[in-house]
Amino acid sequence: MPPFARLAGLAALLLASTSASASIPPPPGAAELAQRGDDIAWTITEDLTTEIGPRMAGTEAEAAARRWAVTRLQAMGFANVREEQFDMPVWVRGAEEAWLTSPFLPQKLAITALGTSASTGPEGIEGEIAYFDSFDALVAAPEHMVKGKIVFIDHRMAPAQDGSGYGTYGRGRFTGANVAAKKGAIATVIRAIGTDHHRNPHTGGTNFETGVKPIPAGAISNPDADQLVRQWKRAQQMRKSETPLGYVSEPLRMKLVLTPRNLGTKHSGNVIAEVPGSDPAASPVIVACHLDSWDLGTGAIDDAAGCGIVTAAAKHVMTAGQPRRTIRILWAGAEEVGVFGGKAYFAKHGKARHAVALESDFGADRVWRIDFKLPDSARGLADRLAAAVMPFGVVRGKQAASGGADIGALVQAGVPAIDLAQDGTRYFDLHHTPDDTLDKIDPAQLRQNVVVWSAVLTILANSEDRELP
Amino acid sequence: MPPFARLAGLAALLLASTSASASIPPPPGAAELAQRGDDIAWTITEDLTTEIGPRMAGTEAEAAARRWAVTRLQAMGFANVREEQFDMPVWVRGAEEAWLTSPFLPQKLAITALGTSASTGPEGIEGEIAYFDSFDALVAAPEHMVKGKIVFIDHRMAPAQDGSGYGTYGRGRFTGANVAAKKGAIATVIRAIGTDHHRNPHTGGTNFETGVKPIPAGAISNPDADQLVRQWKRAQQMRKSETPLGYVSEPLRMKLVLTPRNLGTKHSGNVIAEVPGSDPAASPVIVACHLDSWDLGTGAIDDAAGCGIVTAAAKHVMTAGQPRRTIRILWAGAEEVGVFGGKAYFAKHGKARHAVALESDFGADRVWRIDFKLPDSARGLADRLAAAVMPFGVVRGKQAASGGADIGALVQAGVPAIDLAQDGTRYFDLHHTPDDTLDKIDPAQLRQNVVVWSAVLTILANSEDRELP
Repeated sequence: MPPFARLAGLAALLLASTSASASIPPPPGAAELAQRGDDIAWTITEDLTTEIGPRMAGTEAEAAARRWAVTRLQAMGFANVREEQFDMPVWVRGAEEAWLTSPFLPQKLAITALGTSASTGPEGIEGEIAYFDSFDALVAAPEHMVKGKIVFIDHRMAPAQDGSGYGTYGRGRFTGANVAAKKGAIATVIRAIGTDHHRNPHTGGTNFETGVKPIPAGAISNPDADQLVRQWKRAQQMRKSETPLGYVSEPLRMKLVLTPRNLGTKHSGNVIAEVPGSDPAASPVIVACHLDSWDLGTGAIDDAAGCGIVTAAAKHVMTAGQPRRTIRILWAGAEEVGVFGGKAYFAKHGKARHAVALESDFGADRVWRIDFKLPDSARGLADRLAAAVMPFGVVRGKQAASGGADIGALVQAGVPAIDLAQDGTRYFDLHHTPDDTLDKIDPAQLRQNVVVWSAVLTILANSEDRELP
Repeated sequence: MPPFARLAGLAALLLASTSASASIPPPPGAAELAQRGDDIAWTITEDLTTEIGPRMAGTEAEAAARRWAVTRLQAMGFANVREEQFDMPVWVRGAEEAWLTSPFLPQKLAITALGTSASTGPEGIEGEIAYFDSFDALVAAPEHMVKGKIVFIDHRMAPAQDGSGYGTYGRGRFTGANVAAKKGAIATVIRAIGTDHHRNPHTGGTNFETGVKPIPAGAISNPDADQLVRQWKRAQQMRKSETPLGYVSEPLRMKLVLTPRNLGTKHSGNVIAEVPGSDPAASPVIVACHLDSWDLGTGAIDDAAGCGIVTAAAKHVMTAGQPRRTIRILWAGAEEVGVFGGKAYFAKHGKARHAVALESDFGADRVWRIDFKLPDSARGLADRLAAAVMPFGVVRGKQAASGGADIGALVQAGVPAIDLAQDGTRYFDLHHTPDDTLDKIDPAQLRQNVVVWSAVLTILANSEDRELP
C-alpha cells in the first residue's frame, strides 16, 4: 500500500466529520480503507496548553516548554530530537491600567502593553489625547499636534478569510509608537489589532528604530476604543459649545500605568526533530511552527495548534512508511518577540540545502487554499499537490507563497515554499488575547489541517531531485 | 387620533427594520401613519454608559448617575422628577489575581471577586483545591473534604431563551461561599455563572448568613474553569500513577489574592419621574429599571437599556396624549448589591395603591413573551394586551408573571404584575462582565422593546378602575 493510500483513511474520517467538506466526494478508494482516529494534533495542543500554558519567549515557562517538547517528540519516535539554544533580549509585562480621566468621571479601560513598550513608572503618566483616525493620519500629522500628548490611533479592522487586514491595520501596532515617539509623544495607545468586541485587548510587538527612545505603548480593546472615541467626540463638542450638566470644558485626558521591564539577554531555543529519509543525499523538507506564545492566553491557536498540525502530519508520514527525503520539524523559540528562533535556525542551517519549507502559524481553522513559490522544475509537483488537497475543500491560489515567520529567512534566501492557507475569518478575534485558549479550537477543522498537511507532506517527502533543489 | 394609533407609527417603523418580526403583518392602519424615528432608548443608554460608565451602588459614580438622571428626565418633560435617598452598606473591589500553582508551573487565572467577598489580604492565601462538580455536591460533602481548602464549584450552564439556567446554576454564586464557609473552607472559587467562552469572569453578589464569617469568594471565567478542571484531572491521575516528566505528585493548588473592602454605610437613592394621569383618583402604573450597575462593564444591558426602554415608552405615551392613570418611572438604586432601592421604594410607598407593576431588567434583546399576574377582574385587559403585542412577535405565556427585583416587594404584597419577557439566549454571555458595553446592544431589538412597552403601557395607563386595583 503506497503511503498516500494509508493517509486516505484519515481523509475518509475527515470527510465523515467535517461539514465544510461534507459535499465533496472522498478520494477514490478512501472509503474502503481502514479508518483511524487522529487525535495527535489535539493532544499536543491540549497537553502543551494545559501543562505549560503561556510560554513567553526567554522565560522559565518557555524553557519548560522546550523540555516538554523534547520529551514528547522523543516519545513519538522521531529521530535527532534536540534543543538548539540561542540568546535574545527578554521583555516582560508589569502592571497595566488606564483611565479616561477628563472631562467625565474617571473610567477604567482594558489595556495591555505592547512588546518593547517602555514603562510609565509605577505612578503612571497623564496627558491629553491626540486622536488620529488612522496610522497614516499620525504619519502625516505635524509635530505640534503630538508633542507632549498621548497619541491614540484609531481604525476599524474587519475580518477577512485570508487575514489581509493585519498588514494594513497592523502598522499602527508595528511602528505607531515609533512614529509618535519621534514626534515627541509621551505615550501611544492604539485600538487593538483585532476583529472581536470583547474587552480583552490584543498584545503584540511594537518596534522602535535604533536611536529612538521607546515610549510607553499599549492597546485597548475595541469596546474601550469605542468608548474613548465617544468621549473624545463629546469633549470636542463641549469645547465648541456650552458645557452640559456642569462638566468642565476640557480635552479628553488619559492616565496610564504600564510597568513592563527589560530583563536583559536570556536563553531561548529551537526544538528540532526528524523523520529520517531513505536517501541521505536528498535535501530535507522543513515544516515549522513556534513553541513560544504571548503571555495573556495559553497560546492554543498561536501556535500550539500549528505545532500539533505539522507534528501530527510528520508522524502520519513516518507511520505510513519511510519517505525518501528527511522531514525536519522545527518548533521555533521566541517567534512572537522578534523571530529570534527563525533567525537562529537560519544562522546555523541556512547554508545547507532545503528542498522546501512550510509553516503552520495561523490558528487551527481549516486549510482553504494552497499557494506555491516553487522552481519551474516543480510545475508537475504543484499540480499533483493541488489535486491531492482538492478533495478536502482546498483551492489553488494565484499568489506566490510567502512562507511563515520562522522560515522567512530561508524563503528569502531562495528556499521554495508552500502555504497551506488557513481560514483566518475569526483568527483576529483571538490573536494575542487572553482568549487564545483551547476551547476556541474546533477539533474537526484541526483534523482537516492534519489530513491536508499529511497529504502534502507525503508527496513532498517523496518528491524527486529534479523537482526540488 | 387615539393614543395607540399614534404608537402604531412606531410599530410600522419597527416592522420595517426588525427581521425577527419581518414576516408578521403590521397592525391595521399602521402603514398609513406617520413614521418617526425612536432613538430615545438608545440615546439614554449611550449617554449614561458613555458619560457615567460603571455605576457601582453607593459610589460617587452612582451619585453622578442620579444627578444625570434627574437632569435628563426633567429635560424630557416628565413631572415630579426627584431623588429619594436611602442608606446602604458599600462594598468595593480591590486587587484580584489567582494562579494555579501546583502540580504544574504557576498559571494565572482570570478571576473576579463576588460582592460581599472577604479579603485575602494583600499577600493572598494558598491552598489545595477541593473540587465539586455542582453546588449540590458541595452541600452533600462532609466537612473533612472542605475544611482548610479552597472550594471550587463546577457546573455547565447552557443558554436558555427564558434565562432559566440562572436559578439552577446561580446557587453556586448566591450561597456557595456561605455553604463552604460553614464547612471550614478558606475560600471559594466558582465557575462563573455565564454561557460565554471569554476570559471575562462574571461577578455578582454572594450572601453569607448572619453569624457566618465571610470568606474570600471569586469567580473564574469558563476557559479558566476548563483549564482548572483539566489540571485537576491530571493531578488526580498523577497521584494514582507514576509522575510523568518529573512533575511532583501533588494535589492541585491555587493562590488567591482578593482585596475588596467594605466602606460602611453610604447614601444611594432612587430616581423617580412621572407622567401625570388625568384622573387623580386612579392608582398609578409603575415601570421600573435599575440605575446602578456592576463595576466591570459600563452596565449597558444591565440595566441602562432597561431604563432606556421604560422611559422611552412612558415618553411615547405622554406624547400621544395624557393617559388616565399616572405612569411612575422608577430608576432604582443599589439593585445589584441587594435590591436596596426596591426595598426603600416599598418602605416609602408600599402602602399606597399601585395598579400594576412592570420592570425591564433582562438586557436589550427582543420581547418574545408576555406573562400576567393579574386579578380576575383583568381577564379582558390581559386579552387586549396579548392581542396588542402579538403583531410584534410576542406570544402569550402560561406562567404567572414574577415582576422584577425592584418591584419584587410590591408584587409580593399583592400588586398585579406583567412580565414582558426578553430573549435571554445571549444575556448570560455578558451579564456582570466587563463585556456589558454599548456595542452589545442591537438597536433593532431595542426598538422592538420600546414599541411593545409603548403598546402595553398605553393600554395599562388607560385601563379602568374595575380592571385594576
